[in-house]
Amino acid sequence: MQDIVKGLLKKNDKKIVLLVMDGLGGLPKEKGGKTELEAAESPNLDALATESECGLHTPIDFGITPGSAPGHLSLFGYSPIDFPIGRGVVAAMGIGFPLQAGDVAARVNFATIDEKGSITDRRAGRIPTERCAELCELLASIKIPGIELFIKPVMDYRAVVVFRGKDLSDHVQDTDPQAVGVKPLKPKPISKKGGKTAHVAAEFIAEAGKRLSDQAPANFVLTRGFAELPHIPSMQELFGLKPVAMPIYPDYKGISRLVGMDVVEGLNDLDHQATALRDQWDQYDFFFLHHKYTDSTGEDGNYDAKVSEIEKFDAFVPRITALKPDVLIVTGDHSTPSVMKSHSHHPVPFLIHADQIRPDGVREFGERACVTGLWNVIPGRLLIRLALAYADKLAKYGA
Amino acid sequence: MQDIVKGLLKKNDKKIVLLVMDGLGGLPKEKGGKTELEAAESPNLDALATESECGLHTPIDFGITPGSAPGHLSLFGYSPIDFPIGRGVVAAMGIGFPLQAGDVAARVNFATIDEKGSITDRRAGRIPTERCAELCELLASIKIPGIELFIKPVMDYRAVVVFRGKDLSDHVQDTDPQAVGVKPLKPKPISKKGGKTAHVAAEFIAEAGKRLSDQAPANFVLTRGFAELPHIPSMQELFGLKPVAMPIYPDYKGISRLVGMDVVEGLNDLDHQATALRDQWDQYDFFFLHHKYTDSTGEDGNYDAKVSEIEKFDAFVPRITALKPDVLIVTGDHSTPSVMKSHSHHPVPFLIHADQIRPDGVREFGERACVTGLWNVIPGRLLIRLALAYADKLAKYGA
Repeated sequence: MQDIVKGLLKKNDKKIVLLVMDGLGGLPKEKGGKTELEAAESPNLDALATESECGLHTPIDFGITPGSAPGHLSLFGYSPIDFPIGRGVVAAMGIGFPLQAGDVAARVNFATIDEKGSITDRRAGRIPTERCAELCELLASIKIPGIELFIKPVMDYRAVVVFRGKDLSDHVQDTDPQAVGVKPLKPKPISKKGGKTAHVAAEFIAEAGKRLSDQAPANFVLTRGFAELPHIPSMQELFGLKPVAMPIYPDYKGISRLVGMDVVEGLNDLDHQATALRDQWDQYDFFFLHHKYTDSTGEDGNYDAKVSEIEKFDAFVPRITALKPDVLIVTGDHSTPSVMKSHSHHPVPFLIHADQIRPDGVREFGERACVTGLWNVIPGRLLIRLALAYADKLAKYGA
Repeated sequence: MQDIVKGLLKKNDKKIVLLVMDGLGGLPKEKGGKTELEAAESPNLDALATESECGLHTPIDFGITPGSAPGHLSLFGYSPIDFPIGRGVVAAMGIGFPLQAGDVAARVNFATIDEKGSITDRRAGRIPTERCAELCELLASIKIPGIELFIKPVMDYRAVVVFRGKDLSDHVQDTDPQAVGVKPLKPKPISKKGGKTAHVAAEFIAEAGKRLSDQAPANFVLTRGFAELPHIPSMQELFGLKPVAMPIYPDYKGISRLVGMDVVEGLNDLDHQATALRDQWDQYDFFFLHHKYTDSTGEDGNYDAKVSEIEKFDAFVPRITALKPDVLIVTGDHSTPSVMKSHSHHPVPFLIHADQIRPDGVREFGERACVTGLWNVIPGRLLIRLALAYADKLAKYGA
């Protein structure tokens, strides 16, 4: 279906803004109660919804709980099933590492093991990023024959390792058992293709263990999310857009770069992000702003904190609308109901604001209100298509 | 998906009527106002909606603005993506020209060029159809080796040319630059396949220019929409229907013939159409009636005139319902909001009236009301499926 869009693309200067509150969708705390979004005092979002088309979207498909990367791919107009993205690739792209085709990347946790080799802390006491960088330096000189190896700090105890060489593959299992009191797993191949990479990873982990043995609490590494760089056509190529991203967290920079977005660096809060948006306004026609804390508060199970993050975001909406984007989408990449303390499969509320919207009677931005909106429940990847249509960037199909 | 239906078809005498108000879907004139359909006094359609299942349909897909041909294909039960129809084919079928497989047809405009060869009028002062027919006569004897050539008047300054011969293809660009003050384009091939046809078209255009040189204002021809006749299975074959069309305009006759409908000729208004419907009632089981002026008033940007065309149509509804069709669908082939003066991607309201419908609480035929109906937003091509189901023409699937 993307092909039909490609054949219809028209150039113009109209601007599309995509505002993502991570994990936006929620659930009531008690039966019959309100979701976090419904409970939030969000007059600006409610006013927008009144002049928007509303609905809910499924980022991946009915009943499927999205990870962050596929959730965002969907919002960027891609079918996440067609473009599986491993965690390692997201991590490497997030820190701006220039991955090449054939590279295999994996997420690294610095961790603590005891004298018997059992994990006592999967996060090595959450060492700071500076310490993480020093430890990466220590491991960067590890030599494996025929392999170029890179290890870079991400944030806190998290790093990323990249193997470059012939015949590598991402068919390798995680070594992080996601539990304490047990030993790290071996990097087993999950198919024949993964044999060489598993061997390379095992050598890396063994040598890292030696070099870190006196560096407690960070005396071991756990790896997960072995991933190859997939070929993903850019948003320029697919949708004719010139896109820029303004996220704070590295992973969202990574996924933005994967689809060809420029990324504004050095942003730390909504105020920075709004300023950056204004500063970039003339250079681009697609703008992606990401607010992380609606998800992290949801994951913490903190209903009230998630409500308050939505309210914080709401207060920042007028700075966006003041720029008068031609199309404004507000939504999330998945649901993170605080009662579940995790991502969930529930569809995610959205609104699309534009000049030529079809009014649908929705007067509040919330899950229940959006159900009664024009779009009911649609695949998340169609939001970009609707944005292109409302920005008059698609020609008529057929005579 | 059409295959599953084909295996389930049952014959009976039940009759399905499809009423199409071209470009029916609209938008409010001002924020918070009513669409054309919502503003229209349409008591008969409202009464029908109350006893119907309602919803909106996307003729092609989300965000895609349909041309007339694909919009109608969708209403006839076809995926317009699977059956792309070029303008030339629609034009040739519209005048009843017996196209054959391999023929290439193109739309022709008689136009005016100045002594430097620049276009001064793309429509040659809108010459009348009779003059157009005389000029077609003048060009019909053009000889191109190995090619049979037909040129026929359509309406006003519009004609259609058909090339018949070996190795022809529709991979040829338009020569109409869609602008005045510039020279006509050359008929360039868009792939190797189009080489021979481009050459044939160039010979035709050059010779036509010579023969027309003293026929100002119609002293040149512009061509566009080179198209081959696609193989489209008929509605008889796919849906077991015996269909008849009662449109007024040639293009809608063309698209009806493409899917195997018989076409009643010589109709000029709704009164004629209603009479023809009654006259044909015993001979067919699928009836397509087309009302053009809801679209043309929308294209003119005339909100009030579109409202009045809907009201005119409404007044004619009792003559249809008096025949007691077993299934009655009322909808449009796309939206043409008068505020946009063009086709648009907005989903189109529909109602399906039949004995065994599930009441959905909709009491008015309008965009906002249909959003709350049973079907919300569905692909347009499914309407025929629902019609077959309500006409009891589909057997149970599976034991």
